[in-house]
Amino acid sequence: MLLYDTKVAPNPRRVRIFLAEKRISVPTREIDLGKMEHKNPDYAEVNELQRTPTLVLDDGTRIAESVAICRYFEETQPEPPLFGRGAVGRALTEMWQRRMELSFLLPVAMAFRHSHPAMAAMEIPQIPQVAETSRPRVMEFLKLLDARLAETRFIAGDEYSIADITGLVAMDFMRPAKIKAPEDLKNLARWYAEVSARPSAAA
Amino acid sequence: MLLYDTKVAPNPRRVRIFLAEKRISVPTREIDLGKMEHKNPDYAEVNELQRTPTLVLDDGTRIAESVAICRYFEETQPEPPLFGRGAVGRALTEMWQRRMELSFLLPVAMAFRHSHPAMAAMEIPQIPQVAETSRPRVMEFLKLLDARLAETRFIAGDEYSIADITGLVAMDFMRPAKIKAPEDLKNLARWYAEVSARPSAAA
Repeated sequence: MLLYDTKVAPNPRRVRIFLAEKRISVPTREIDLGKMEHKNPDYAEVNELQRTPTLVLDDGTRIAESVAICRYFEETQPEPPLFGRGAVGRALTEMWQRRMELSFLLPVAMAFRHSHPAMAAMEIPQIPQVAETSRPRVMEFLKLLDARLAETRFIAGDEYSIADITGLVAMDFMRPAKIKAPEDLKNLARWYAEVSARPSAAA
Repeated sequence: MLLYDTKVAPNPRRVRIFLAEKRISVPTREIDLGKMEHKNPDYAEVNELQRTPTLVLDDGTRIAESVAICRYFEETQPEPPLFGRGAVGRALTEMWQRRMELSFLLPVAMAFRHSHPAMAAMEIPQIPQVAETSRPRVMEFLKLLDARLAETRFIAGDEYSIADITGLVAMDFMRPAKIKAPEDLKNLARWYAEVSARPSAAA
């Protein structure tokens, strides 16, 4: 088994945190996006979409997409469950994971990709208006998330889940995207401090 | 149980096709996006993100996000499986479902939302350059999908899955987004004809 990983990118970090929470160790090979290593023909054989991460199983099966890789490990090592428990728990965890991804991580990524000078060679063309319109959408979503975290310890409920992982990664990705969480969102701040203090956050 | 549904929108259609494949019948209530019914305060109580669909269980639990609703029914009625079989099958189905969603349905939706006059009141501001840059990304992805469908009958493998549902909905959504699939993508055309002919496609 081999995990193609990228140290500085948010999606591979989601997998690393997930593996740390499961206490699973997987050999990795670094793909340096700054050196455009994901565009090498060799890597296109591994992942035709030329993105990281990708997990290659011993039989050669290639699993791309962060959440699909996490799903594989959830299936092969169910404890501790990070995709929820039972039909309702799994559905609600998927709901919150998707909200974290589509309404939080994605607009943060859009703000970053369409504004950061380092992305000029990757996001062609950069459209400054996309960054400008993404930032207020993130701020609106953070208010909703703060209201949610007034009711529950973790995003999907009482237990830490993949929704928290995506949320943590999105929070940390706000810095290069030049978005700052309002200081009055106390529940968000309480949650962020707690998930950041878990050993897995260093992954 | 009650499903808040919208007849003309692509995401609610994903759930309707999924339910048709499972032969599950659920009472629905129509939310007319054209009349801005999703912005009514009553509906904000159902789904704080004011989107459709949302499933409300008999105990009042509210499950939003199309794929999370599908996940609930996969858990409560596993046959026929639409999220894959076994750890590898489930991971690969999730991989293809996510590719269909993030690299196909999402850019089609971006082309639609940022160009169609009917969306001027919902996508504020419309950014024409987003529509213009989304269309060639869809065309690139369709080539990759055609190559995949040269190898497999359905998108995730030998069996029909949620990846096919997202793919079918994205294909049909290309028309209002003003994107036309190249006619030389024969495998894509073969697959599209097959999934469109299933009774569930009428849902």
